[in-house]
Amino acid sequence: MIQHLLVPRTLFLTNIRRASQALAYDNFGDPAAVLKKVSIQNERVIKNGHVMVKYLASPINPADINTIQGVYPVKPSSFPAIAGNEGVAEVIRIGSGVKNVQIGDKIIPAAKASGTWTTHAILSEKDVTVIDKNVDNLFAAQLTVNPSTAYRMLKDFHKFEPGESLIQNGGNSAVGLFVIQLAKLWGIKTINVVRERPNLDELRDHLKSLGADYVVTEEELRKREIMEQILAEIPKPKLALNCVGGQNATDCMRYLSDNGTMVTYGGMSRKPVVIPTGLLIFKNQKYIGYWMTRWSQENFNSSQRIKMIEELCQLRIEDKLKLPKIELIRLDDWKEAMENISKGFTNAKYVFKFD
Amino acid sequence: MIQHLLVPRTLFLTNIRRASQALAYDNFGDPAAVLKKVSIQNERVIKNGHVMVKYLASPINPADINTIQGVYPVKPSSFPAIAGNEGVAEVIRIGSGVKNVQIGDKIIPAAKASGTWTTHAILSEKDVTVIDKNVDNLFAAQLTVNPSTAYRMLKDFHKFEPGESLIQNGGNSAVGLFVIQLAKLWGIKTINVVRERPNLDELRDHLKSLGADYVVTEEELRKREIMEQILAEIPKPKLALNCVGGQNATDCMRYLSDNGTMVTYGGMSRKPVVIPTGLLIFKNQKYIGYWMTRWSQENFNSSQRIKMIEELCQLRIEDKLKLPKIELIRLDDWKEAMENISKGFTNAKYVFKFD
Repeated sequence: MIQHLLVPRTLFLTNIRRASQALAYDNFGDPAAVLKKVSIQNERVIKNGHVMVKYLASPINPADINTIQGVYPVKPSSFPAIAGNEGVAEVIRIGSGVKNVQIGDKIIPAAKASGTWTTHAILSEKDVTVIDKNVDNLFAAQLTVNPSTAYRMLKDFHKFEPGESLIQNGGNSAVGLFVIQLAKLWGIKTINVVRERPNLDELRDHLKSLGADYVVTEEELRKREIMEQILAEIPKPKLALNCVGGQNATDCMRYLSDNGTMVTYGGMSRKPVVIPTGLLIFKNQKYIGYWMTRWSQENFNSSQRIKMIEELCQLRIEDKLKLPKIELIRLDDWKEAMENISKGFTNAKYVFKFD
Repeated sequence: MIQHLLVPRTLFLTNIRRASQALAYDNFGDPAAVLKKVSIQNERVIKNGHVMVKYLASPINPADINTIQGVYPVKPSSFPAIAGNEGVAEVIRIGSGVKNVQIGDKIIPAAKASGTWTTHAILSEKDVTVIDKNVDNLFAAQLTVNPSTAYRMLKDFHKFEPGESLIQNGGNSAVGLFVIQLAKLWGIKTINVVRERPNLDELRDHLKSLGADYVVTEEELRKREIMEQILAEIPKPKLALNCVGGQNATDCMRYLSDNGTMVTYGGMSRKPVVIPTGLLIFKNQKYIGYWMTRWSQENFNSSQRIKMIEELCQLRIEDKLKLPKIELIRLDDWKEAMENISKGFTNAKYVFKFD
C-alpha cells in the first residue's frame, strides 16, 4: 500500500506529461505513404501493473514493413497503430502493483507489443522482459528477432553433437550471421550458401572470420565435386536452414542427411519449397517452418525464453557475438529510410536511435 | 532334444525333396525381360531355427516392379533373387529349435524376406509372423503393405479425436481404400480426391459405400465454393495423405489446418511436393514422408506391429474391411501380367495364387 501511495506522488515530480513522438499509421499501405510522425500525450497516471518506458533503440525489420503493408499475418489490434515490433527501452515510471520491474531497468517488449517506433510507451509489466543493463543497446534492440531465431533453430530441431554439421542458405542474412556465430561457439560445422556477387572473396573472408567453416555460392552448391570435397571432411548436415526457397532450397536438401530436417524461416526468392518425393519417403527427411513471433508468444514467460535471453546477452557482453552492419537513424529520418528500403537501396539494417 | 531328434524323422516321411517353382532374376531390368521361372531344389534338412513354408498367395505390388527394375532403394542381397516382397504362406516343415511356429500355422514373411513369388521358401523363424488362420488368404497376402500403410498413417502422425477430418489424394488407390474404411471405423471424416474420369458417379458411389464422407475430383478441389461448403460441415483436415505430388498435393495443402501434417507416401504424378512458404512459416504445417518398408524393419517384433496385424485381421474376419479389385493369376501367367502392368493395362491388383 505504501508503494501504491508513493508512486504517483513520485511520478508527479518527474516529467509526466511529456508527449511521445511516434511513427503511426491509420491504414495499411506503402510505409513511405501511410506512416505519419505523431505526437501522443501520455497519461498522467500510469495504470496498475503498467510501466512507462523510454525507447533507446528500435530496429526496422522486414516484418515491420510487411505489417504496415497489411501482408503480414500479425495485424495491429486497432488503428491508429504505432509501427515497429522490437526495441530496447529504459523504465522511467512505474504504476502501482508493479512487482518485477524497477525504474532504471533495461527492458525489451513482447513481440506482440503494439509499436516500438516511438520515444515512449506505456506497457503492461507482463509484456516486458528485464535484461542485463550491461548489454549494449544496439544488440538488445534486435535481440528478440534475429539472434533468437538463430538460437532456437539450432536448439529445437536437432540435438547436435559436437562435430555434426548444418547447411544454410542466406548465409549473409541477419539471421544467417548469428547462425554462423552460435554454431561455431557450440561446435557445429556450417556450410553457408551465399549468392554470387562481385565482392565474393571479401564476403567469404568476413563469414569465415565470424566462424563459418565453408562458404559456397549457389552455383558451387550445384557442383558435385565441390560438395563431395566438403562432405569428405565433415558429416552430412542433419539440419538445413532455409530463408530462400526455390531452386536453392532444393539444392540444399540434396545434401541433407537421411532423417534430416529442413527448417524454412523465410522465402527471399518468393518461390515455394520444392521437395523431390524420394527425399520424403526414402530419406525420411522432415520439412517444417519456424516463426519466431509464434514461438515468443507461446513461450513468453517460459524458463527457456529467459535462459535464451540471458545466454545471448552474456555472449554479447563477452564480445562473442558481432552485429550485422547497422545504420543508425533518427526518427525524423523515417521517410528516407522507408523509401530506400522499398527501392532495395540498403545494405545495412536501419535502427532508430532515440537519444 | 526329443524334438530335435524327432523333427527330421517326421519330415523324412513327408514330401521333402519337392522343388519350388519361383520367379527369379539375375540382373535388374524390365520384369517381362529379366524374370525367369525357375525350379529350386529344396534342402533335405531344414536349418536350425528355420521353417519351410508353402505360399498360398502373393500380390504384385508396384514396389516389387521397381525392385526388379533396380530403381527401388531396397535391393536383393544377391543374385539370382526371387522376386516379390509380400504374401501369405502355410508352414509345412520346421527345423530344430523352432519355438514359436508350428506346422500348419498361417504366416506372413518380413518385408525384407527375399522373394514371395515362389511356391515354397525356407525362412528363419525370426522373419515370419504367425497370423489368425481364420483370415482369408487374399487379405493376408497383402496385409503388410496397403492396409498397414493406411493404419499407421492414421495412427502415427495425428492423435485424431472423433469428428476430426483428413484429406487424401489417390482416394481410389489401394492404400486410399483402406484409409477410407479405417477412418470410417474410427470416426474420422474423410475428404477423398480422385481424378476426373468417365465413370465418376460410379466411383463416388463405391467410395461412399466404403465410408468416404466426401469425394471430390482434382478440379473440384480447386473450386473454393465446393470446398467451403464441405468445410462448413466438418473441421479443416489435421492430416493430409499424399501419394500424388505436384499441383494436386499443393491444392490439398491449402485446405490443411494450421499445425496440420502432410504425409507423402507416393508420387504417382512423378512431380515433386511444392509447398508455399507461408504454409510452413505462418501455418506451422509439417511435411514428412512415410515408408512402410522402413517402419516394418524398425518395428518388426514390436508390440505395436503385432497389435496392428491382429487388429487388421480381426476387422477383416468381421467383414469390416473390403479388398480392392483383385485379379488372381497362376505363376505361369507372370509374363502376361508383367506386360500388362508395364503398358498400364490393369485396373485390378494381380495376386499369384499357388494352389
